[in-house]
Amino acid sequence: MQKRMSLLQVIKSLIKLTKAEEVLVSQLFKEKLYRKGEYFLEEGKICNLVGFVDKGIMRYYINDEGEEKNYDFAQEGQFVCDMESFAPQIPSRKTIQALEDATLFVISYDKLQEFYSKLRYGDRFGRLVIEQVFVRTLQDLNSFYTESPEERYRKFLDKHYDIDQRISQYHVASYLGVKPQSLSRIRKRILGRK
Amino acid sequence: MQKRMSLLQVIKSLIKLTKAEEVLVSQLFKEKLYRKGEYFLEEGKICNLVGFVDKGIMRYYINDEGEEKNYDFAQEGQFVCDMESFAPQIPSRKTIQALEDATLFVISYDKLQEFYSKLRYGDRFGRLVIEQVFVRTLQDLNSFYTESPEERYRKFLDKHYDIDQRISQYHVASYLGVKPQSLSRIRKRILGRK
Repeated sequence: MQKRMSLLQVIKSLIKLTKAEEVLVSQLFKEKLYRKGEYFLEEGKICNLVGFVDKGIMRYYINDEGEEKNYDFAQEGQFVCDMESFAPQIPSRKTIQALEDATLFVISYDKLQEFYSKLRYGDRFGRLVIEQVFVRTLQDLNSFYTESPEERYRKFLDKHYDIDQRISQYHVASYLGVKPQSLSRIRKRILGRK
Repeated sequence: MQKRMSLLQVIKSLIKLTKAEEVLVSQLFKEKLYRKGEYFLEEGKICNLVGFVDKGIMRYYINDEGEEKNYDFAQEGQFVCDMESFAPQIPSRKTIQALEDATLFVISYDKLQEFYSKLRYGDRFGRLVIEQVFVRTLQDLNSFYTESPEERYRKFLDKHYDIDQRISQYHVASYLGVKPQSLSRIRKRILGRK
């Protein structure tokens, strides 16, 4: 279970920051508000921001012939970005949307290059975060193809500690790849509710 | 189509290296030979090496209830590693095997940390390579679920410029997720052979 941390705490958990660098970080990231339902990224657009979720929940989904399939969530203390669009700066196949009114600290592609260059350990921070996101993405994918929805739901509860209570069960079911009725049965078994 | 480059050329295409750093790099990487059929990584073991393929072809596969499913290849000028096992140092679910007698330059997990720390732009190099591998992995996955085997085969030919002539069509078919007979038909259409 991940602790809720501020942006500076997350950075400082991975690299050393001088006081001057802390100031620079707070200049490079800008606070941005997203209303519930608003898009951080729309399919077909180039992802030009990395966001850090200070408050709220974001969902990632892919439009599969008209059906929105959730494949990830980000909440307080986590980064949000579509690396597949952001790194090569090409149009995205994915959509990222706020599921609650949200407060993010965002950094543009250009400012992020400045972050990497000007901070003594900027590239190290980038390397470590991308490694973590990469490994998590691979684990999620494996899980989707090898584990039962019930196992996946247990992992979801571990990873996203309170999202389950904050978003519609419809969105959770979409993430698990099951119908809402199946999720309801899984929840009864796991949570012991009748 | 990727040009064949030496390890130092690949590194210098992404970051600046001083002469002293070039010497350090050649000390940190060790030459290692793999016979055809030999394993770079076996399922259940921890991936403790990153390899750079100087000569030969490696295949990545996953054991799916007894069936070996190829999901990637690496050849001259490319890195080989299972990041999902390497980064967190946990047992791998994948296998990486030489399809030809191969010469790799390998670096251990510990030596790679030294590479990151001692080179001025070591972490930048790591960040850029992981970004590229991450994006390529996501593109491959999308391709598998959204593109036809024929489109995938065209991309395979683009990306792995001469692998098609060097390995068994059986391995290519496994990568495309089709039977060898289907690949044979696709090849006839694309290559115009009868």
